[in-house]
Amino acid sequence: MPQYSDLENAIHTLVSKFHSASADKSPTLKTDEFKGLLSTQLPNLVKGIGSEQGLSEILRKMGVGSGEGISFSHFWSLIQQLATSQHNILSQGAGSTCSCALL
Amino acid sequence: MPQYSDLENAIHTLVSKFHSASADKSPTLKTDEFKGLLSTQLPNLVKGIGSEQGLSEILRKMGVGSGEGISFSHFWSLIQQLATSQHNILSQGAGSTCSCALL
Repeated sequence: MPQYSDLENAIHTLVSKFHSASADKSPTLKTDEFKGLLSTQLPNLVKGIGSEQGLSEILRKMGVGSGEGISFSHFWSLIQQLATSQHNILSQGAGSTCSCALL
Repeated sequence: MPQYSDLENAIHTLVSKFHSASADKSPTLKTDEFKGLLSTQLPNLVKGIGSEQGLSEILRKMGVGSGEGISFSHFWSLIQQLATSQHNILSQGAGSTCSCALL
C-alpha cells in the first residue's frame, strides 16, 4: 500500500467529505445535507448559513438553481473561491517574512 | 484559537503547498519548482512527469503557455481534474456498499 502525501490526502478529504454528506449516496446533496456539511466542516470559512437569506446567497454564488440539488461541481466552485481568497491573502504577504499561516 | 475541521485543513494544505514550492515566494512557480511539487506531493496521482514530453502535456492541459510561470489558477485546474476524476470513481460505486476508499 503506497504512502500518500499531504496534498493527496487533502484532495481525498475534499472529495470524501462531500460524498459522505449524502445520506443516500446520491450524486447531489439536498439543501439540508449541504447545510450540515458547511456547518460542521466550514464553520470558520463560510459565514452566514445560519439565516435563510445567507444560505440562499451562498447557493446563488455557487450557481445552484432554485430547488436544484448541489453537485460536486457546485461544491467545487465554493472550495475554489475559498482557496483563491486564501492564496490572495498569502500573496499579499510575499516579500515580507512569510509565515504561511493561512488559517 | 479556533479548531479547524478536516475540510478547512485540506484547503489550507492545498494553498500552502503551492505557496511553499516557490523558493523566492513569487506569485508563480518556475517549471522546475512545479516539477518538484508534483514529484514530492502528487507521485500517485500525476504520472508522466519523468519525461520532458509528459511534463509538457501536463502543463498544456493546465493551460500554461510556453515559458510561462505556473500560477495558482493553473495549479488549481490540475487539482480540479484530480478531484473530479476521484469523485467520478466514487459516484460509480454509489448504490453499492461504498467504502469511500478513494486513494
